[in-house]
Amino acid sequence: MSTTAVPALDKTFQILDLITDSAQPLTAAHIAKALNLPRSSTHNILQSLLAKHVIYKDSDSRFHLGSYLMYWAGKYEQQQGVIQLFKDLIVQYPILLQHTVTLSKLDFGEVVFLACHEAPAPLGFTFRAGVRVPAVFSATGKAMLSTFSMDSIKSIYASGFPTPITQYGVDNFADLSTELTAIKNSRISLDDGQLREGMYCLGTYIRNASGNAIAGMAVSFLQAEYESKRAEVSAVLIELAEQIEQRLGFKDEH
Amino acid sequence: MSTTAVPALDKTFQILDLITDSAQPLTAAHIAKALNLPRSSTHNILQSLLAKHVIYKDSDSRFHLGSYLMYWAGKYEQQQGVIQLFKDLIVQYPILLQHTVTLSKLDFGEVVFLACHEAPAPLGFTFRAGVRVPAVFSATGKAMLSTFSMDSIKSIYASGFPTPITQYGVDNFADLSTELTAIKNSRISLDDGQLREGMYCLGTYIRNASGNAIAGMAVSFLQAEYESKRAEVSAVLIELAEQIEQRLGFKDEH
Repeated sequence: MSTTAVPALDKTFQILDLITDSAQPLTAAHIAKALNLPRSSTHNILQSLLAKHVIYKDSDSRFHLGSYLMYWAGKYEQQQGVIQLFKDLIVQYPILLQHTVTLSKLDFGEVVFLACHEAPAPLGFTFRAGVRVPAVFSATGKAMLSTFSMDSIKSIYASGFPTPITQYGVDNFADLSTELTAIKNSRISLDDGQLREGMYCLGTYIRNASGNAIAGMAVSFLQAEYESKRAEVSAVLIELAEQIEQRLGFKDEH
Repeated sequence: MSTTAVPALDKTFQILDLITDSAQPLTAAHIAKALNLPRSSTHNILQSLLAKHVIYKDSDSRFHLGSYLMYWAGKYEQQQGVIQLFKDLIVQYPILLQHTVTLSKLDFGEVVFLACHEAPAPLGFTFRAGVRVPAVFSATGKAMLSTFSMDSIKSIYASGFPTPITQYGVDNFADLSTELTAIKNSRISLDDGQLREGMYCLGTYIRNASGNAIAGMAVSFLQAEYESKRAEVSAVLIELAEQIEQRLGFKDEH
């Protein structure tokens, strides 16, 4: 838990995270107890969030997330124009629509999920927007990192190589470098169970008008379906990425 | 500006709203000046928001909204299952896809926009999620209110009938009641320039398994196209609403 110079904000973040992570709406008493916060300050923060519609209180006095969060997040989405392009253009690719497809961006060595098209299958993977994972283990992260020099990558991870999440995770710069070289040639990255065992993801990057990889896009598979779909899905994924790049003003000058 | 028991949160909301409303990213000095806040507390709040990724700072030290907002808002959207159903099912209705279609819910006499399908036309209306307007002037609000008794509606607006936004806005309970009776018969509500002059909206309500109107859905037109499209669009709008209701578990027992 990071502690900052504004204790009321730390408590507010804890409260919002608790409500977000809880399967049920919670009472003020439950929130104060779960976070070990004084009831009076919990009460004041909840009232303040309530007045702004950041949370809402149901008829049983239990707190839910509120609509004002969408106001801020909606503007964030708008600013990230690539999200809208992804959502608009993916509908033209029936092959991709059968799978879970994610869009994410790189942020200080981590990948943040921006949007997710969920597979219609009842057992598909899902990715919550805003969730962060170390870039080196994810298909979108690897794809974006492949456009960087190894020196820049080492400076991003100056405090050390991230600890693998599964037994398949890459765990040193030399192996990562080999992976990234392969991505440079094929434009396709692979997470073979590095984020979650049994889940395979094929990814690629999306460049803007300045030629910077501002986002990555990846398709998730169960290991079993991955082999049979790999070639077809890779080709279509690159096609969609190139279409989004064109709309972002990217020009390939080679 | 509402002032609550937690001054740090009031300032935080002001800062987030300022960044949200600004066309350009802002520096800390600009934010402090625009809101007339002390630079030290502005700095502390910005650092706290930054550490949580609620905002981010670009290489010119200007602040933008950050990805963590999507984490909270994404959960809010998930909790409002009707948003996902709206987004999933609207694609089956090509007639609706030509127009701007909004989904909203009722919240203490106001309507909050939850989602918006934007018309492909370059000059369509757009509605930002999280924005609130008085329910009595909006098509979705009127549609949802038509499922309430006039007594409940009067108790919602106990402090007085909302002030009209345009010269066409309904301004008393008797006229509103006449409108709502017509909606009960047709299942279609009309905002004929009450929210914005020249904009016409046709709306209907969406009921859940308990039979409560938990959301409203509306199509926006320019006045000129409204007459020619009215019949066709109304029929399709009701069809989509009924399909969403079915997926929400609503059973018509009449």
